[in-house]
Amino acid sequence: MEVTNRYITIKAHIDGAPKESDFELKDAALPLRVDLDTNVVIVKNLYVSIDPYQLNRIKSFSSSQSAINFAAAVTPGEGIDAYGVGKVVVSGNPEFEKDDLVVGLISWGDYTVVKPGFSGLTAYAGLFDICKPKKGEKVFVSAASGSVGNLVGQYAKLFGCYVVGSAGSKEKVAILKEKLGFDDAFNYKEVTDLKATLKRYFPDGIDIYFDNVGAEMQEAAVANMKAFGRVAVCGVISEYIDAGKRAAPDMLDVVYKRIKIQGFLAADHMNVYQDFLQKTSDQLSTGKIQALEDISDGVESIPSAFVGLFRGDNIGKKIVRIALE
Amino acid sequence: MEVTNRYITIKAHIDGAPKESDFELKDAALPLRVDLDTNVVIVKNLYVSIDPYQLNRIKSFSSSQSAINFAAAVTPGEGIDAYGVGKVVVSGNPEFEKDDLVVGLISWGDYTVVKPGFSGLTAYAGLFDICKPKKGEKVFVSAASGSVGNLVGQYAKLFGCYVVGSAGSKEKVAILKEKLGFDDAFNYKEVTDLKATLKRYFPDGIDIYFDNVGAEMQEAAVANMKAFGRVAVCGVISEYIDAGKRAAPDMLDVVYKRIKIQGFLAADHMNVYQDFLQKTSDQLSTGKIQALEDISDGVESIPSAFVGLFRGDNIGKKIVRIALE
Repeated sequence: MEVTNRYITIKAHIDGAPKESDFELKDAALPLRVDLDTNVVIVKNLYVSIDPYQLNRIKSFSSSQSAINFAAAVTPGEGIDAYGVGKVVVSGNPEFEKDDLVVGLISWGDYTVVKPGFSGLTAYAGLFDICKPKKGEKVFVSAASGSVGNLVGQYAKLFGCYVVGSAGSKEKVAILKEKLGFDDAFNYKEVTDLKATLKRYFPDGIDIYFDNVGAEMQEAAVANMKAFGRVAVCGVISEYIDAGKRAAPDMLDVVYKRIKIQGFLAADHMNVYQDFLQKTSDQLSTGKIQALEDISDGVESIPSAFVGLFRGDNIGKKIVRIALE
Repeated sequence: MEVTNRYITIKAHIDGAPKESDFELKDAALPLRVDLDTNVVIVKNLYVSIDPYQLNRIKSFSSSQSAINFAAAVTPGEGIDAYGVGKVVVSGNPEFEKDDLVVGLISWGDYTVVKPGFSGLTAYAGLFDICKPKKGEKVFVSAASGSVGNLVGQYAKLFGCYVVGSAGSKEKVAILKEKLGFDDAFNYKEVTDLKATLKRYFPDGIDIYFDNVGAEMQEAAVANMKAFGRVAVCGVISEYIDAGKRAAPDMLDVVYKRIKIQGFLAADHMNVYQDFLQKTSDQLSTGKIQALEDISDGVESIPSAFVGLFRGDNIGKKIVRIALE
């Protein structure tokens, strides 16, 4: 048996903000047949994740020369990896059977050959492993209604911290305060002076800044940090699309306030994976944590879903549903 | 008995690079008398330390608004604290007797009332506590012939690291390579592309960057770091005199290479003080560590000694000898 695998690829490496026209939908015949001893598994993709970090893998070499060594670069014309959920169609691996649901690295398309992987650790590891919060500490989260930010805020609240988030619309701010239990939130687009704004929300200073955006917001947060403050640099979405945009935090603050600025990737924190999975699934099932998801349909909607991330279109984790089963 | 205490003060808070004319020599009558139960000790200053960080305490409020909360600000007309060595003249403290030699926070002048303190931990704590080196790791030190930098390099070499330093003259580079045993060193003033230069000295990347200067050098070092690299931000002398000058390291590097950028102050690392003191005095006495000192004479030479720090005049630790005994 053979199916047509439709998948999204890039026409060429991208500079600056992505446009839908940078992408194209291709298709290829895929025989649903695997050899027994190869361990190959063919998966029908059900849901795929749309994340800002993927831009770093499809940018031109010149605009991301050093980062490209650390995240595998995507070749134009080929498929684009993403975390997702799928269903096994044929299995050459004794650990998987037909119709098993699998979670891991799949691709932006109808079908994939799955390598088992992991997902969603970022918020948990970044907050607990990198920032080591103490009860009562003051936490600031940027892009707080994004896939990672909303979980960081919820974890920090459950842990006993005071949490303020920034987001890019009234609607997002309302969700943070009313649905997710943030102590406070503000729309950064309505603010002219970020430094003064953070001073108002944190008159005694910030202990932890979970940075999803970089640039001016990181500078303003560092200026408002307390002594021994911690900045977890999870992503810098405002810098992804504009390599000229940089965070230049005041190093005098960094020295005198003994601030730690730490980049991290979830993949290094597999040590807390079991802990994360257990606690989070308990908290989700008891309603202590709200899942904030933004779902659109169809493999052809992937480019607009991705481009929308950089305009702040999504509220919560952006997912594309490829198939219902 | 009464003496005349000559001391250096500032005429007003300073903006930008310090000039000798920002300072003045004042004098005041000082009765050499203390009440018995006050624990006050009057010390005749012998040597005082001249350090770049002192600029942050004498800058105008507007140019160091946030840092000033963390380092006590100096008032124009009053004395300026500094680490140093002195001899007890009169003691109202049972722990000190006349003619005892003391080390600690004294002041830029002939006499001081001493509070016992500490000194010199910076290089040791910054390297070992903040950067946690492993044998064989590649270490880059800026301002490597300065008071802290030269010790960092020597400690790192003794520990088994590969060490390259940058400094601002041929003479300094020669001292690093020939006297202090650095594996290599370069004159940053002869270099047009810092990033490419570091790439040449560290083809496989930098594990540890001990930052004494900030700005472009920090950016170039971060661009050349390996995964899990550590930047200890000890001081940012190039930013002290120009608040507009900032380090804007690429946060994509910080995230993907999981880089830690950590500010610190020696005062937080008293836990390693005994260890530091013991090891360093052993290593100094057996010649494994060279003391690199740059001494000038007389309280009136303090302003030019201080101003010279920001021109890179000093080779090693800048000290002013106030009196021979």
